[in-house]
Order: sequence, then structure tokens, then C-alpha cells
Amino acid sequence: MTPFIAEVIGTGLLILLGGGIVANDILKGTKGHGGGWMTITTAWGLAVFVGVVVAGPYSGAHLNPAVTIGLAVGGLFPWADVPTYLAAEFLGAMIGSSLVYLMYKDHFDATEDGGFKRAVFCTDPAIPNNFRNIISEILGTFVLIFCVFYFSGAEIADGTGTKVGLGSIGAIPVAFVVWGIGLSLGGTTGYAINPARDLGPRIVHALLPIKGKINSGWGYAWIPVVGPIIGAVLAALLYLTLN
Amino acid sequence: MTPFIAEVIGTGLLILLGGGIVANDILKGTKGHGGGWMTITTAWGLAVFVGVVVAGPYSGAHLNPAVTIGLAVGGLFPWADVPTYLAAEFLGAMIGSSLVYLMYKDHFDATEDGGFKRAVFCTDPAIPNNFRNIISEILGTFVLIFCVFYFSGAEIADGTGTKVGLGSIGAIPVAFVVWGIGLSLGGTTGYAINPARDLGPRIVHALLPIKGKINSGWGYAWIPVVGPIIGAVLAALLYLTLN
Amino acid sequence: MTPFIAEVIGTGLLILLGGGIVANDILKGTKGHGGGWMTITTAWGLAVFVGVVVAGPYSGAHLNPAVTIGLAVGGLFPWADVPTYLAAEFLGAMIGSSLVYLMYKDHFDATEDGGFKRAVFCTDPAIPNNFRNIISEILGTFVLIFCVFYFSGAEIADGTGTKVGLGSIGAIPVAFVVWGIGLSLGGTTGYAINPARDLGPRIVHALLPIKGKINSGWGYAWIPVVGPIIGAVLAALLYLTLN
Amino acid sequence: MTPFIAEVIGTGLLILLGGGIVANDILKGTKGHGGGWMTITTAWGLAVFVGVVVAGPYSGAHLNPAVTIGLAVGGLFPWADVPTYLAAEFLGAMIGSSLVYLMYKDHFDATEDGGFKRAVFCTDPAIPNNFRNIISEILGTFVLIFCVFYFSGAEIADGTGTKVGLGSIGAIPVAFVVWGIGLSLGGTTGYAINPARDLGPRIVHALLPIKGKINSGWGYAWIPVVGPIIGAVLAALLYLTLN
Repeated sequence: MTPFIAEVIGTGLLILLGGGIVANDILKGTKGHGGGWMTITTAWGLAVFVGVVVAGPYSGAHLNPAVTIGLAVGGLFPWADVPTYLAAEFLGAMIGSSLVYLMYKDHFDATEDGGFKRAVFCTDPAIPNNFRNIISEILGTFVLIFCVFYFSGAEIADGTGTKVGLGSIGAIPVAFVVWGIGLSLGGTTGYAINPARDLGPRIVHALLPIKGKINSGWGYAWIPVVGPIIGAVLAALLYLTLN
Repeated sequence: MTPFIAEVIGTGLLILLGGGIVANDILKGTKGHGGGWMTITTAWGLAVFVGVVVAGPYSGAHLNPAVTIGLAVGGLFPWADVPTYLAAEFLGAMIGSSLVYLMYKDHFDATEDGGFKRAVFCTDPAIPNNFRNIISEILGTFVLIFCVFYFSGAEIADGTGTKVGLGSIGAIPVAFVVWGIGLSLGGTTGYAINPARDLGPRIVHALLPIKGKINSGWGYAWIPVVGPIIGAVLAALLYLTLN
Repeated sequence: MTPFIAEVIGTGLLILLGGGIVANDILKGTKGHGGGWMTITTAWGLAVFVGVVVAGPYSGAHLNPAVTIGLAVGGLFPWADVPTYLAAEFLGAMIGSSLVYLMYKDHFDATEDGGFKRAVFCTDPAIPNNFRNIISEILGTFVLIFCVFYFSGAEIADGTGTKVGLGSIGAIPVAFVVWGIGLSLGGTTGYAINPARDLGPRIVHALLPIKGKINSGWGYAWIPVVGPIIGAVLAALLYLTLN
Repeated sequence: MTPFIAEVIGTGLLILLGGGIVANDILKGTKGHGGGWMTITTAWGLAVFVGVVVAGPYSGAHLNPAVTIGLAVGGLFPWADVPTYLAAEFLGAMIGSSLVYLMYKDHFDATEDGGFKRAVFCTDPAIPNNFRNIISEILGTFVLIFCVFYFSGAEIADGTGTKVGLGSIGAIPVAFVVWGIGLSLGGTTGYAINPARDLGPRIVHALLPIKGKINSGWGYAWIPVVGPIIGAVLAALLYLTLN
């Protein structure tokens, strides 16, 4: 698997499962209807786990332009590869959210509220306030990217240079961090913390002929793009300062 | 333990615990009544964990004809052993669901709704639609089987060929993937994603003299068999294409 | 730490945390009041984790007469040490449940329902039925003890005889198994699956001068003792047969 | 990263995420409003995970004066470094809770109940009772610190002296222990179990110009400081006695 394909598939799985839990939670008549914030955040954490398990060994499993840009600013990822990764992440997110619609279409049709339908694709703020909302996205993404810099794998400590990888188990820490961010810092804007996760599916929402859909919330769309990038850059700069 | 016995016991434990949580959640008067989707999906994930812990070292812990067929199509499991595994998986599932009935019988008797009683055994769609329901089962199973191909264990990375197994901890990734699939992709059809998990207990439902039972839903029964097999084959083909 | 002390402390922590979650869930005015089955079963799983982390290296962390007896029947624990372990487990359970009362006393006093107060100490069946209730305890304990026989630690697979322990992480599998048993098989009798966990605190309930307490449910008390022992013996016999 | 900076950042992340879940759960209009005890305790556990992942390799990730003092009493941490660590922990906690206010300010403004606003910063007892409340904090902290003494990392068991670290995965046990303490022992006082976690944000609450705020609960403030320290000392003394 090339890194491009790994990022497409990994991000696709992330958004298929991430969009899926929102659909399951808020669309009418689903088995998991009304499961609440715990189900949503747990499932997004597990969605990250699934994407990282598959893509990790092939691309490092960024699955998020904020990760790609953050690592590049921090000097841990070549700038030359950034465009390829970003393209793959957006493509994957758009495929993933299209599959969610394909799967949950009957429940989209059964739901009256156009806001609920859009929420399966992209985030919107609980209380609209550009300044405060972008701070939320900055803070949530900062925590994610800062942790990414400080994750450490298993290692033999005796100095032989031998390293032990933990395989798929090694995907747990990032899943737990995203789970925690969702529970704690997702309450204001719904924690996009990933431009591809938000903008990609928002474009899909605009393109798909969804019955009874409302506008795609373009007035807000820049915040979950710009906020996460700022958060990632700040995390990288702090990392560089501390190292 | 022979692989046959390991698959019978592992699948039996899977369905005992998996059927058990549904009984606990929806039958009348249980301690966990009304726990909701989070309890159901968490417990099914843990049910996979239990089955894999026990059967893993002896049979690879397929516990699911979709896994067996998917691995065979992908060239990682001999076709000659497929019939033995399938038979064991169905047998285990039937034993497991019989034990659920034995244990929860008083609560079956206390429950009026025949649909709830049947749901302890097998799945049915939230909104019946053959095309859409089979897509749900295909997608859910595809995610599971595709991940199975990409799970990796711990390994020494220095090229000596030495490998470190993580023992029972190694059963966590598949449990987390199934947990995630349930939360995110289980909202439409209840995520059978396993022909033995659905058809085996459905047959048990048909055979058992359950008080006030309704029909066993035979009109729908082919979907959670055919869908998972298609999903598994697609996952294997994509794996073969990418490798 | 001697094995005796390790079993006392480990079982004490198990019951302090296990009894604590029931108190928090059902007594009046607590912060976690009405958390439901998910909180109860998750906390009991984590209570097992805590007990095993502390006692594991010193006593093997049985924390449960069913484990002790099951391992003895299976030939993995010397019969001569069984009485010491059982005494420690009962003593630990009684200390743990006394501490729960000490801590939650004001909430005991604020709660009218004597049945709720007793439930903090010991189990009772959702639907009383000796035959069916004992089957529940047998099945739940069977799953636990059978898994105990098949847990495996990390190991170097290259045949050098070197073994890698996972330290505290190694306590996760048993915690997950107990979590799963609670969710799936706890719906009928409240899953004692441990004679010390039920009888020890029941004795404490009988002895303590709890305001407005009801009887200690002695008519039912033999089932969560005998059922788990039968389940453990059956698990050990199946293990011996299969090995 | 110096240990001082690691403790500031680690404790800051802990309180940002820990305060964040309380804000998300109880302030008006948030996405996670009314999530309940399960979301609160899960997120606090994950908050510990995040703080330990980042600070662990640099300071040992105490993040809590009770840990620092407990380890010093137990002889595992030099008393000379205690003041630096305590200062860092309080500073980090104050920064973290300030960020929570910055992020959730619109939801603070939308919430009428001043008690809810204060609860985002610091704890208060469900039923006020100095004796009983301090026992709660002692018990909860005792369990935490006692476990800290008995955590063990992965290790090669063949006597070569080689040790395998598990990297970020190694932060799971303490997160699980705090999760369990919260669920089981948090029902009475809200489990401060950490003087910096409670007093630091309480000071921030007193200083910030929060709209419609009530008093900062100074009458209770000593209990979540003194209780945890007593609990930590008791845990260390028991550890010294047993070793």
C-alpha cells in the first residue's frame, strides 16, 4: 500500500465510522438512536483506532491535515509530501461520508430535521461565536497534536538499539487521546480538530441530493479548517521550543 | 484443543455473552434493562475478546464464517479447512444461544413482546429494505475483515526474526474494532456481520418452545448470511489488490 | 507481601471499589446516582483491575474462592494453600465492604429502601428461582474460570525460553472478562460469581447497625456460594479434559 | 523538557480535560450536556492518560501533590524536589482551569446556577459532613497512591537485566485506576484525590470575573487538600510496612 492509498483508506474508515456513529445517534429510527455523547465520543475514538491499525504501517496514519502540517512544522515530516497527504485525507473523508449516506439513507429520509442530517457530515457550534469557537478548535487540536509529538512506542531500554513494536495495540494511545478530547473539549463546537473530517464531508453534503437538506453551513466552514491548523502549528512550535 | 473444538467453544462464548447482553438489555425485569446501545456494543466487543482469548492460540479464533471465508479468499487460510471451521462456528453459536435461553428463561417468560424475544437470537432491520440492509451488512463486515488482514502483532524490529507475542492482550484490537463497528455501523441492521452469529441462533429460536414466540424472521434471514460473505470477499479482494 | 496479605488487600480493594459503585449508583443523593448498569459493570471490571495490579505479583491475585478452587481442581494451585487463600479472600471482602459503609454512611442514612442498602453488600435475584438462579451463577463463573485457565502472557516466540511480562498492563484481560460477564450474564442474579464477594459482605450487612436495614437475605445466600463453586469445578474439569 | 515544565504541562492537560468534561456535562447548551457520571469519570481517567503520556518520560508524571508527597514518604522521591513539583502542579492546574473557562465561557454565561459554574473548578460534597467527607478523600487517594507503589512495567524475566518499556501504553494502568476510583469512590465528595486539582482551580474561580458566580466554597476547601495528603501518607506507610 502506498502512503497515498493508506491515507485514503485510513481516513475513509475514520469518517465512515465517525459519521456512522453520528447517524446512528441522531437520525430517526436507528438502533442506537439517542445514545448520547458517550456513544459518540467512544465511537470516534474507536474510529481513529481502526484507521490507525490499517494505515499506520504504511503512511504513519496521519488521517488529518492538522497532523500532517503539525509534523511538518515540527520537522518530523517532509514538506514535499504534505500535498499528497492532504489530498488523500480529503479524498478519504469524502468517500467515507458518502458511504455513511449510502448506508443510512433510509434513516436520512425518515428524519425531518435538516440540521440533524447535516450534523452527520460536519460540525456546527453549540453557541455561535467566531472567536470562542476557533479557540475551542485550537485547544482541542493542540492537545491532539502535542500528544502526537510525545507518544512513545515500546523500546528495549538497555541501549542495544533494539526496538519492540506493539503492533495494532500501539494504536490505542491516539484513540484514547481523541476519546478524551471528544468528551472534555467537544462540548462547544463538536471537536472537528481535523480539517479533512469537517470540510470533506461538508462538500459531500453540498453535492449529494439529500431529501430535505438545509444549507451546508458555509459561514462556519472556515473555523474547523483554520482552528485545527493554528492548533497544530502552536503544538509544533511548543514542541520545538521544549526540545 | 483441536481447532474444531476451539471454534465451537470460542463461538459459543461469543454468542453466550453476545446474546446475553441483548437479553439483559431488552427482556423484562433484568438488572440491566434499558441499558441501551452503549451496553450492547461494549458487551459484544468484550464477547469477541473472551472468545479470542480462549480460542486464539488453538484455531486463530475466527468465530465467524466471514472471517474464515475472507481469509481463505485472501490466501491466508486453507480452503480444505473451511468446512470444519464453518461447522464449528454454527455449532458453537447454536450452543451459545441455547445457554442464553436457559439462563434468561424466566425473563423471556416475563416479556410479552415476541419481537424482543427473537432479537435475543437474531437481527432484524430497523427499516426493512433488502438493498440497503445488505449494503449495511456488507460495509460492517468489510471493515471487520479488512482490519483482520491488517492486524499486526508485536515484533522485534531489528531484523533478527524474533517475535514477541502479547498473549491475551493481543485480543484487544479485534474487540475494539467490533466495538466500533457496532456503535457506528450497527444502527441500521443490528450488525450481524457474522452468518453463524445470526443464522445459528435463528434456527435455535425456531426450534425452542419459547412461550409467546413469533416467527423466526426467515424472510430476512438470508441478508445477514449473504451480506457478510460479500463483505468478506470484497475485503479479501481489496487486500489482494493492495498487496 | 505474603500471599495471605496480598489476597486480603487485593480482595479488600476489589470489594471497596465494587461495593462503592453500587452505593454510588443506588443510594440517595450520591454524585453518580442512577448511573445504571454500564457504570456498575465498568466499575466492577476496574475493581478487578485494581486488585490484580496490587496482589498479582504476590499471590497470583485470585481474589475469589472460585478462582482458588478452580485452579486447585485444575492442578495449577496446591490444595494445601486453599484454606489460607479462602480465609484471606473472605477477610478482605469483609474489610472492603465495611469501608464502603464507613464512606457512604450518610447516603445509607438518606436512603429509605432497605433493599437498596442491602444491595450494596450482596446480590439478590431479579426473579427468584433457585434452579434458574444457580444456573446463572454457574454460567457466569464458568466463563470467568475457564478464561483464567486460558489467559496467556506475553512471550518471546523464538524458543529461547525468554519471557516478557507486561506488568500492570497484564491485569487488563481479566478485568475485561469480568466487565463482559457483568454486562451480559449479570442480568438475572447480579453476577456474584465469587463466594467471598457475596457472603463476606452479607455477613457484614448482618453485623453492622445499619439504620433501617432489612434482613440479610439468608434464604438466597447459598446460591452465590454454591453456584460459583460448581461453575469453577466445571470449568476446571473441561480444562483438564481438553488439555 | 525539565521536570518542572513537564509537571506544569502534564497537570495543565489533566485539568484542561478534567475541568472540560465537567463543563461539558453540566453547563447549559453544551453538546455533552447531561452525559452523567460515566462520561465524567471516563474523561477524568483519559485526562490522566493524556497528562501521563506527555509528562511521564520527563518528570514521572506525578500531576498531583498527593503522589509527590506519597512517593517522598515512601522513599521513592527526594524530598528536596518536592517543593518544585508542588509548585508546578498548582501552576499547571491553574492554567488548565483558566483554559477551560476561556473555552466554555459562553456556556458559563448561559448557565444560571452558580453552583454548577463552581463545580467546573472544584469539588463539593454531596452531603456536607467534615468527618465523613475527609474519610472519602482519604480512601480515594489511598487507593490511588497505594496502586502507584505497586504498578509494574514490562520486564524481561530471564534475569539479563534488560527491561522493555511499553511507551505510551504504559499510561493505561493509572488511567484505569483513576477511572475506577471515580466511578466507585467519587459518589460522596466528587473525588478530588489531588490537592492541586481542587485548590488550584478554586483559586482561579475566586480570581476570575465569572458572571453570576457564587462564593468559592472556602469552608470546604481544606478537605480536598488535607484528605488526599493523609491518604497518600497512609498508603506510603502501608507500603513501607509491607515491603
